[in-house]
Amino acid sequence: MKTLPFKLFQLSRRPHYSFITSQRLFNYDCFADRHIGPSELEKQQMLNYLGFKDLDSITNTNVPEAIKLKRNLRLPPALDEWRMLTELRGIAEKNKSYRSYIGMGYYDCIVPKVIIRNMLENAGWTSPYTPYQPEIAQGRLESLLNFQTMICDLTGLDVANASLLDEATAVAEAACLAARATKRYTILYDKQLHPQNLAVLKTRAEPLDITLVPLDEIENPTVTRDVAGVIVQYPDTEGKIFDLQTLIENTHNAGGLVIMACDLLALTMIRPPGDLGADIAVGSAQRFGLPLGYGGPHPAFMAVAKRDSKNSLARSMPGRIVGVSKDVHGNKAYRLALQTREQHIRRDKATSNICAMYAVYHGPQRLNAIAKSIHKSTAYLAEQLRKNDYIVAHSTYFDTIKVKPKNLTDIRVKCEERRINLRFFDDGHVGIALDETILSQDIQDLLYIFGIEMERVTIEKEISETVCPLIGNSDHARRSPFLSHDIFNKYHSESQIIRYMKRLENKDLSLVHSMIPLGSCTMKLNASAELLPLSWPQFSNIHPFAPTDQTRGYQQIFNDLEKWLSEMTGYDSFSLQPNSGANGEYAGLLAIREYLKSIGQEQRKICLIPSSAHGTNPASAQLANFKVCPIESDKHGNINYKDLCAKVEKYKNELAAIMITYPSTHGVFESSIVDVCNKIHENGGQVYLDGANFNAQVGLCRPGDYGSDVSHLNLHKTFCIPHGGGGPGMGPIGVKSHLSPFLPGHPLVPLLGRSEGAVAGTPWGSSSILTITWAYIRLMGGDGLRQSSQVAILNANYMAKRLEEGGYRVVYKDEQGLNAHEFIIDCKPFKKSAGIDVVDIAKRLMDYGFHSPTMAWPVHDCLMIEPTESEDKAEMDRFVDSLLLIREEIQKIEEGLFDREINPLKMAPHTLQVCVDSNWDRPYPRESAAFPAEWCHHKLFPTVGRIDDKYGDMNLICSCPPMDTYK
Amino acid sequence: MKTLPFKLFQLSRRPHYSFITSQRLFNYDCFADRHIGPSELEKQQMLNYLGFKDLDSITNTNVPEAIKLKRNLRLPPALDEWRMLTELRGIAEKNKSYRSYIGMGYYDCIVPKVIIRNMLENAGWTSPYTPYQPEIAQGRLESLLNFQTMICDLTGLDVANASLLDEATAVAEAACLAARATKRYTILYDKQLHPQNLAVLKTRAEPLDITLVPLDEIENPTVTRDVAGVIVQYPDTEGKIFDLQTLIENTHNAGGLVIMACDLLALTMIRPPGDLGADIAVGSAQRFGLPLGYGGPHPAFMAVAKRDSKNSLARSMPGRIVGVSKDVHGNKAYRLALQTREQHIRRDKATSNICAMYAVYHGPQRLNAIAKSIHKSTAYLAEQLRKNDYIVAHSTYFDTIKVKPKNLTDIRVKCEERRINLRFFDDGHVGIALDETILSQDIQDLLYIFGIEMERVTIEKEISETVCPLIGNSDHARRSPFLSHDIFNKYHSESQIIRYMKRLENKDLSLVHSMIPLGSCTMKLNASAELLPLSWPQFSNIHPFAPTDQTRGYQQIFNDLEKWLSEMTGYDSFSLQPNSGANGEYAGLLAIREYLKSIGQEQRKICLIPSSAHGTNPASAQLANFKVCPIESDKHGNINYKDLCAKVEKYKNELAAIMITYPSTHGVFESSIVDVCNKIHENGGQVYLDGANFNAQVGLCRPGDYGSDVSHLNLHKTFCIPHGGGGPGMGPIGVKSHLSPFLPGHPLVPLLGRSEGAVAGTPWGSSSILTITWAYIRLMGGDGLRQSSQVAILNANYMAKRLEEGGYRVVYKDEQGLNAHEFIIDCKPFKKSAGIDVVDIAKRLMDYGFHSPTMAWPVHDCLMIEPTESEDKAEMDRFVDSLLLIREEIQKIEEGLFDREINPLKMAPHTLQVCVDSNWDRPYPRESAAFPAEWCHHKLFPTVGRIDDKYGDMNLICSCPPMDTYK
Repeated sequence: MKTLPFKLFQLSRRPHYSFITSQRLFNYDCFADRHIGPSELEKQQMLNYLGFKDLDSITNTNVPEAIKLKRNLRLPPALDEWRMLTELRGIAEKNKSYRSYIGMGYYDCIVPKVIIRNMLENAGWTSPYTPYQPEIAQGRLESLLNFQTMICDLTGLDVANASLLDEATAVAEAACLAARATKRYTILYDKQLHPQNLAVLKTRAEPLDITLVPLDEIENPTVTRDVAGVIVQYPDTEGKIFDLQTLIENTHNAGGLVIMACDLLALTMIRPPGDLGADIAVGSAQRFGLPLGYGGPHPAFMAVAKRDSKNSLARSMPGRIVGVSKDVHGNKAYRLALQTREQHIRRDKATSNICAMYAVYHGPQRLNAIAKSIHKSTAYLAEQLRKNDYIVAHSTYFDTIKVKPKNLTDIRVKCEERRINLRFFDDGHVGIALDETILSQDIQDLLYIFGIEMERVTIEKEISETVCPLIGNSDHARRSPFLSHDIFNKYHSESQIIRYMKRLENKDLSLVHSMIPLGSCTMKLNASAELLPLSWPQFSNIHPFAPTDQTRGYQQIFNDLEKWLSEMTGYDSFSLQPNSGANGEYAGLLAIREYLKSIGQEQRKICLIPSSAHGTNPASAQLANFKVCPIESDKHGNINYKDLCAKVEKYKNELAAIMITYPSTHGVFESSIVDVCNKIHENGGQVYLDGANFNAQVGLCRPGDYGSDVSHLNLHKTFCIPHGGGGPGMGPIGVKSHLSPFLPGHPLVPLLGRSEGAVAGTPWGSSSILTITWAYIRLMGGDGLRQSSQVAILNANYMAKRLEEGGYRVVYKDEQGLNAHEFIIDCKPFKKSAGIDVVDIAKRLMDYGFHSPTMAWPVHDCLMIEPTESEDKAEMDRFVDSLLLIREEIQKIEEGLFDREINPLKMAPHTLQVCVDSNWDRPYPRESAAFPAEWCHHKLFPTVGRIDDKYGDMNLICSCPPMDTYK
Repeated sequence: MKTLPFKLFQLSRRPHYSFITSQRLFNYDCFADRHIGPSELEKQQMLNYLGFKDLDSITNTNVPEAIKLKRNLRLPPALDEWRMLTELRGIAEKNKSYRSYIGMGYYDCIVPKVIIRNMLENAGWTSPYTPYQPEIAQGRLESLLNFQTMICDLTGLDVANASLLDEATAVAEAACLAARATKRYTILYDKQLHPQNLAVLKTRAEPLDITLVPLDEIENPTVTRDVAGVIVQYPDTEGKIFDLQTLIENTHNAGGLVIMACDLLALTMIRPPGDLGADIAVGSAQRFGLPLGYGGPHPAFMAVAKRDSKNSLARSMPGRIVGVSKDVHGNKAYRLALQTREQHIRRDKATSNICAMYAVYHGPQRLNAIAKSIHKSTAYLAEQLRKNDYIVAHSTYFDTIKVKPKNLTDIRVKCEERRINLRFFDDGHVGIALDETILSQDIQDLLYIFGIEMERVTIEKEISETVCPLIGNSDHARRSPFLSHDIFNKYHSESQIIRYMKRLENKDLSLVHSMIPLGSCTMKLNASAELLPLSWPQFSNIHPFAPTDQTRGYQQIFNDLEKWLSEMTGYDSFSLQPNSGANGEYAGLLAIREYLKSIGQEQRKICLIPSSAHGTNPASAQLANFKVCPIESDKHGNINYKDLCAKVEKYKNELAAIMITYPSTHGVFESSIVDVCNKIHENGGQVYLDGANFNAQVGLCRPGDYGSDVSHLNLHKTFCIPHGGGGPGMGPIGVKSHLSPFLPGHPLVPLLGRSEGAVAGTPWGSSSILTITWAYIRLMGGDGLRQSSQVAILNANYMAKRLEEGGYRVVYKDEQGLNAHEFIIDCKPFKKSAGIDVVDIAKRLMDYGFHSPTMAWPVHDCLMIEPTESEDKAEMDRFVDSLLLIREEIQKIEEGLFDREINPLKMAPHTLQVCVDSNWDRPYPRESAAFPAEWCHHKLFPTVGRIDDKYGDMNLICSCPPMDTYK
């Protein structure tokens, strides 16, 4: 027998299993059975109903023969929960969690355990969808409104969104916003932006022909009248706080806008952008309660000043904005404001809920105390270093200093000895950024690194006597109050905040209540075992720019994922950087753009996009400076091949790419897919295959095999990252080898063999949530993943057939009469027959305890339904029965038995208050409002009635309304 | 500077902080402010209202001068959450988590992560109270009914309870039940009982004059007609499965009962007690999903056969039984059955919820597969050992074998090398018990220990070919089906079980919804940071009989707790063994009993108990064979000192002890306490001070200072262990030094300087939850703890005064007109004036979104209210306002404005169904039923109407009713 070295056994229990592929003796628990909803019996019942023998016979029928994958996926065999976690723990142990003083926009912080347990680790908060159905989403909408209020208060600006991908993309977005607002194309930037912010800004600017010019002098710059905006980092990347008055004046005099990339915590102590007169503030909210996580997820914010009565900056700001409106009963109600803008298809994040709750929990005094404790420690450290003849570069700072070491090698050795990371500048200086976790022991260790030995008690005593540059009468000191709203001042005990969080949670429908059959959104199970490792310190406590020799565990996860995703897709390499599906599309199109350039085909600018495409497709194409040319659909919902050929012919020499979704957004495996790819390639174009529907393909066919060159994969759809009420997601891209050299790079962490052109602030995006996807794949194995795709398809076809038999028309099917993993039902006829709009059906579904399917996309007046493989037959039957009961209600309107205006659909959703109201005067009984079906007795009631969107958009209020409106 | 050795830094981030008392630089976050509900402003408002300057002035007024603690508590200074967890993590690292094959009733198991996250780590499940208000407790009642059904099915018996403290006390309870049922006092026992079961049985039997006699021969024993019962372990402690047919026949022929202590998992494969004809089965449910936790908490079960039409065994069974009844609307509803029995004051546990959910999640097939995999592995191991000339003691076994080693020293060395614990018998044999976590690698390691080296692949192959003694045609094989009820066969996917758990959770009112002001129950905050360490493997994965050199971390926690609790109470030593308050009382009285014996005063048998005492007091006194003599109260609710003196005089020579609660159960700091203690001591008695109300004393006065000799402390009251819907609790006892030698001991783990006489199966009770108390004390520090007591007193007096001004009479106060931490309001007048019973007020409070205070105890027709320090003023005001609004409703009845029968109180609680019913025909509006106050718009609705207890008791159904009743 080979025994392992004794030492291994010392680490933790059974770590050795992580290095071998040990097998449980009897495989009594198979995770795929837990992930996949229907039991074997239910699967057979559904197959019988559809007339198929087994799962293979159904997917062999609808996946075109030409593209079928004729072998098993080569993935490691499935592990059960327990073994997967044991293996992953072994990988986690390979990460080294050093204390990090690197800064650069990422800081360790202390997440209150009450927030971790009740929000971050709670499916009630992680599993809802983006709050598009506000009547069953008032909880997280309130929380997001708190976030916006917090951002407005801290930045001193008027309107904030909730939220953006990361600070770096927020900087790029702000530059674009300035360009749009001023119709100018030059941006001046501070050379002391965080390097990753500058890198993403450069990537974004280049295709859009925005000229970037470094500022000549920050405290009195020359700003000409062609300048759209000036971007500064505040405090800058070296920690310095500049006097920005003249810069702001000069910029405004030239008609430009001032953009400040801010540190949110610093703003509790230093003058906020609004007070200084800036126009736009962006930044990361990470240090308000989110772990470093080797890069995320961390929400970024953007806030703008209201300069005119139209509030035009706010109205063209990217990202979602939660606004206050009212419902049909005249009650205050929250919803996503300004939905007509392109925001929804651009950005999403909801880790902002955590940050908002962090502020609610601490309140203004404690936030200020946190900032002060960091600032005083920094000031003390600087003072001690100066006393010991070190040169500290700047005299005004918040939490970051730049120091010239006497002996750099010595510093590096001592850092290693104490397991500490500093920032090493190219000029030989080091940077030290302190954070909320700082103890006197840490100060002692930092001084030790610089050869200064001091007693801890001395440090503690002296720090309390330290004079702080920013406290008191400093020019930079903040004077305006913040977070004075009641919401930030009443939930400070743990009992109070837990009840507040629970009250918000219980207003929202999530996967813990019922299925959320949103077509194209793939609301499948997010298993507890997949989410668990997120809380492990070996994954959460790592700075995104930590040296890679400290992140071997993460590197193994990235390598595994790249290998596994390549095997599933047939691509040759992957970039894990893109932070969302849209960000992935953009990165993929940039790769195509760079590739075409590299082969001298930069004139190719035409991007063909089917009319049924995701809205992100044309938006991303525009960002990459492609010209969008739409292609029609035929009556089956397929790409109109004739139209395609005509367009290809017409743009033969300008054709850059086609963007296509497969199976189509109409829910069909198009049999022409190979022909389409060939046609594009024959004419010099590249195929971008949108991976939104990849969950129907895993194990059945591979984009890389049938002609696609590049795809993004929505890990929050196919690969189990929870939607978190609207983010975070991840959108890695896979490419064929000719595109590999054009994948995203990073200015700070070399990504081997790849170009520059970062699309996100961190090299591997929101690294920590990649563990979820890793866990899912490891738990399912090749067979489990394949069966997932098959059951997703079975479930969809089962529901489609039942609905069809009950009187709904399924809009598109393939030649065999089947759908892929989702399908569309037609609600248009009811408009004429009963005056019922699709939105009435959506709202009425809430009364049945369900979230609406995707509404009016990709086809107007229709619903697109996607059950996913995680739903069992009983749950799908309840949903189908609800729609059939609604169909009967419509019929009663058609037959004149129900009034055309006052009926359960038009009046939906029904709140509890309405159902209990003594003055019920409707021509249908209360019971049909509250409990229209037997299973509704444990449903979640909407907390507000139908919301008036127009009112809200006309009266834009995007922060917490004053307390008296709560009465 | 002193640097720590480099190695320390390798373990985890900042482990060194756990060894030093490092200070955060600025104390911006103070846990006491999070734990204590009212803000500084609110405290001042309440003090003003009561006419006091500050907290000290109020507690100086009501704590009698004679007993006041005039110094600060000598406890380590408070740490914030983050530092406390860092320090505790360091302590945890000192535990060594070996693989354990010790068995003896404790087995490692795999808790599905979905259950951990959604039940074990979810305040919605951990923070409710015992389900005495069933209308807002249907969720956990359903879960407990599932537990009972599971136990009935697996044991093959008719009625089960939910549940008992641990297997050892369950064995003792079963013996007492047999004695009660047969009125005989001899118990025969199998010498192969687990040693701790025998030890607790012996402790219990001795004072009750039950004679214990070992069985002469297990397969054909002599049973005489004075035998109450025969107790066997099944399989026995060496793993053997005996043929019990003759034993059962002989016992029944002699009119005795057969008690089997069973392994629950084995019962999926071997013939269950019911099939064999046994009368009573007990055992632990630990291996159904609960971590070892160095001893618990683990629920035990008891099931009995129905031998007669009266079901008399069930009716005198200890522990809570959930039964099925119906509500006023005729709907099925669950509640605690047979409440008139003494069960409630005896035992409690609700970790049984986890075990039930484990069975729901796995279902019968998977449970059987788990058992088979363990059994096959055991059989294979035995076979390999025999092949290699080892003597394996028995040929029939389930998961445990006993082997004679060739070289014991060698075995011990190899065990250490592989970090494995075996059981070492006194006779030189070793025991090996396998469990659910077994992998082929583990078998390989076990064989290696015995000098057998085999390849893992060989092991895997051969195990699958192993013939299993219990599978197939064995005489011992189980033939009856189990868990065939739908509930165990429909929630097997993770989406299904998470929704099921959430549905149950959302039926129950817990601390996440509103305050639970149960007098004497102290429903204070259970902070997330306190509960977090329970999930750490260093605490959860340790066998209770692991060698103490592997549990240095736990030992430090025990030592700290003993030291800290001694400092707080003024006692000299502590035993952490008692598993509940009642168990603590019992252990304390036993110590008194042994002490009196040791000084030749065994004739002292009288135990004085005030009439207002907790019901547990007389019950415990009886168990310790004391004679209870009640003492009257005076009109202030104090002990009637004259009556006391008279009784003391009368029983001068027989006086053993007084049991007294302080502050009194009437909510008053009695000024006579010192006199009472002196009086008892002068007459040769001992003072047992019930620690139920210790939360009003911490930092203010110490029982050990003012004359008490022994107390138990309810850690789930004063020290933040969550109530978990009815357990688990902990009831450690503190004693003055003369009683120290008589604290509980343990047969397997020597407790230095203490006698034998275990009162629980494990040396330190439910060790793992002691970390909660440790964390609480460490977070609060002496000042925080003292302030907690003060604010608890402030809150109670604030509420009392507000209620008094609103027309309620506060029954008892001290001479200064103050209450301690709780108070009683009189509801008797409303009986006459309006026909309103206290229960009507209790049920009506549910309509206001609140849990009732303690009802009809300690004074009939009254409510006892205890807010605790964790509630803020706004929450208390809502509760007081509810009671005042109810008072107005009562007045309307008094004035004839409301009907005396059909009014909101008599009809309370109102379910949603009732409020929405079209046929509302009550003389008050629906709104006053559903939303009687503004804050009710986010209340939890009761899911059933008022429950008919009598119906349920007359028609006793204690397992899941057939499916058609669910329609």
